[in-house]
Amino acid sequence: MHSLPRAPTVGIIGGGQLARMLALAGTAMGLRFRVLDPALDACAATLAEPIVAAYDDLAELHRFAGTCDVISFDFENVSAAALAALAEERPVRPNPESLRTSQDRALEKALFQRLSIPVGDYAVIDTLADLQVAMASMDAPAVLKTRRLGYDGKGQCRIKPGDDLAAAFDALGGVPCVLERLLAFERELSIVAVRGLDGAMAFYPLTENIHAHGILAVSIAPAEVEGTLTSQAQQYARRLAESLDYVGCFAIEFFVVDGRLLANEMAPRVHNSGHWTMDGATTSQFENHLRAILGWPLGSTSARGISVMLNWVGALPPVAPALAIPGLHWHDYGKAPRAGRKLGHANIVAERRADLIERLRLAEQYLGCAAQVQAALARLG
Amino acid sequence: MHSLPRAPTVGIIGGGQLARMLALAGTAMGLRFRVLDPALDACAATLAEPIVAAYDDLAELHRFAGTCDVISFDFENVSAAALAALAEERPVRPNPESLRTSQDRALEKALFQRLSIPVGDYAVIDTLADLQVAMASMDAPAVLKTRRLGYDGKGQCRIKPGDDLAAAFDALGGVPCVLERLLAFERELSIVAVRGLDGAMAFYPLTENIHAHGILAVSIAPAEVEGTLTSQAQQYARRLAESLDYVGCFAIEFFVVDGRLLANEMAPRVHNSGHWTMDGATTSQFENHLRAILGWPLGSTSARGISVMLNWVGALPPVAPALAIPGLHWHDYGKAPRAGRKLGHANIVAERRADLIERLRLAEQYLGCAAQVQAALARLG
Repeated sequence: MHSLPRAPTVGIIGGGQLARMLALAGTAMGLRFRVLDPALDACAATLAEPIVAAYDDLAELHRFAGTCDVISFDFENVSAAALAALAEERPVRPNPESLRTSQDRALEKALFQRLSIPVGDYAVIDTLADLQVAMASMDAPAVLKTRRLGYDGKGQCRIKPGDDLAAAFDALGGVPCVLERLLAFERELSIVAVRGLDGAMAFYPLTENIHAHGILAVSIAPAEVEGTLTSQAQQYARRLAESLDYVGCFAIEFFVVDGRLLANEMAPRVHNSGHWTMDGATTSQFENHLRAILGWPLGSTSARGISVMLNWVGALPPVAPALAIPGLHWHDYGKAPRAGRKLGHANIVAERRADLIERLRLAEQYLGCAAQVQAALARLG
Repeated sequence: MHSLPRAPTVGIIGGGQLARMLALAGTAMGLRFRVLDPALDACAATLAEPIVAAYDDLAELHRFAGTCDVISFDFENVSAAALAALAEERPVRPNPESLRTSQDRALEKALFQRLSIPVGDYAVIDTLADLQVAMASMDAPAVLKTRRLGYDGKGQCRIKPGDDLAAAFDALGGVPCVLERLLAFERELSIVAVRGLDGAMAFYPLTENIHAHGILAVSIAPAEVEGTLTSQAQQYARRLAESLDYVGCFAIEFFVVDGRLLANEMAPRVHNSGHWTMDGATTSQFENHLRAILGWPLGSTSARGISVMLNWVGALPPVAPALAIPGLHWHDYGKAPRAGRKLGHANIVAERRADLIERLRLAEQYLGCAAQVQAALARLG
């Protein structure tokens, strides 16, 4: 045996709950963390010596990089150009090109198409005239989304034939957009995958997701799907990761339409739909992201039982009744409550479906999350 | 749903790895932590705003208590009198009386006996004359242990009939001791149990332990034992906890002699032989200790698969080869290496015994821990 040299320091740009859960997973393994975040009260700050600075403050970013062995980020709206500058100095994983692609819905869709990953009908919209032409051709309900800086349902609006297109375009600020045909999807699935520095890949089981008001409300994993959907999703994830020379965890969200996967978007990071892995998989997505970016071997992505993740948005249910539910694991990000803010989640894990259903009924009864539980129960049958 | 009031702050006296793992488990649940420790580099300090002070510095202890909602401790050599003073101010859990009993081998053995928990032959030794009388009567190899302040094999020495008793007594400082007959035990087992504020109890499966140089080297859980040993250990744990009105996790270590449990000692805290619960049980001992001292419901203590815990003492094996072993979970306490110091551990978990054995062979091959693996394999058959 020998002693390790100084434990690596992982820098994360963005100090939200994803950074916090990365830091919790990594601290247990002896890693050190730094975060850079403009908010003084970033919820990862208590676990990772923080630098308070804007995401495009190059001087502070360089000072930050100087204290880290490897750099990652916990959300997409970091400046890809700034990241590219940091990448001259320290390994940035995933690479800035992956971030740049995912930041722009038009680039992302074009890449999906180049890789033969099916997507729904869409059009790139630069001007009102583009929108008018596209809407006339689509002639169906659609969603107009800004190309950049959208998340959790922000930066988008629904339109249908006959609507005032100029008003809709203006409402989003007249910025470059994509117009997506509104899909009558049967369900929403996601795959969380991880690619190591050596190119090895591992895939978590497909997760079924239910959104409310544009924000993830419930995940069920492993999703009940035919094997072909799983192998298809894995193929798409592999193509995407290999084309980007991606390192770390990422997610692809899919709509299922007529039994087929249509890619909606990818997230170049650990993902809300992978939070169940903290208690329901052999290795959590957070640990696997760290293993990947440090060049360590990946951990098993196999599920342990069946999990339902209930997201707590805007407010937290009372903790004591929650902890009385068998197999429930409580995650509180330590953030001040605010409408629409993700404050925490619970993973309910069971070996058997019948137990999971019983535990969800307890959650419905004691935690005031009836809509989430009903949505989960409808999927669990 | 409603928002929680401010998350509770848990104060832990002692900032070692046990405090660190408590803080990791609790931070995930939104708790805040403070630790009081005399060492500037206490390994829990990065997770819990530290106060650097001696364990008997009453002024600092009171200042510390003022910042906490509930107080616990991470090792036994805290002043029970100081804790009793703090208990006037804030809930101290487990209570100071439990600590006082466990700090003194004579009080502890007397309590075991009062509760009909079998112990090996022993005698209380205050003077050299006591030792001479006891040794003459025992007339067998024995271990002389200081009544107080011993741990990890410190504060004890073996003696046999004919040895220089005065030298042995002097070597331990001439302080009050107990003399214990050296037991030809078949195996060492421990039970980790937890008692809630409402008196509810939960028991982890029995764990088999292997020591090297007086320090825990390997744990295997659940231990392969007859059901009667489990129910007996649970009965003993229940008697002990109820007699002390104990709140929190604790461990009792047993020797198995002629198929019978003989209690060796109890630890009024989370315990090294419960570290496997982090990856091999539904709820870790750390989370359950926090649930208990906060008055929250206890979590399930059921095992998930079979676990082997390998303790890293003095040095850490290389991390990357370790992480290549399926089902291995890496825990590094972030401490500077030093001979005899517990620096981390690995839990290797598998659903099936055959897989566990295969993974242990990989550990033997790649981690330089042949003695530990051989000891584990000998028990796993």
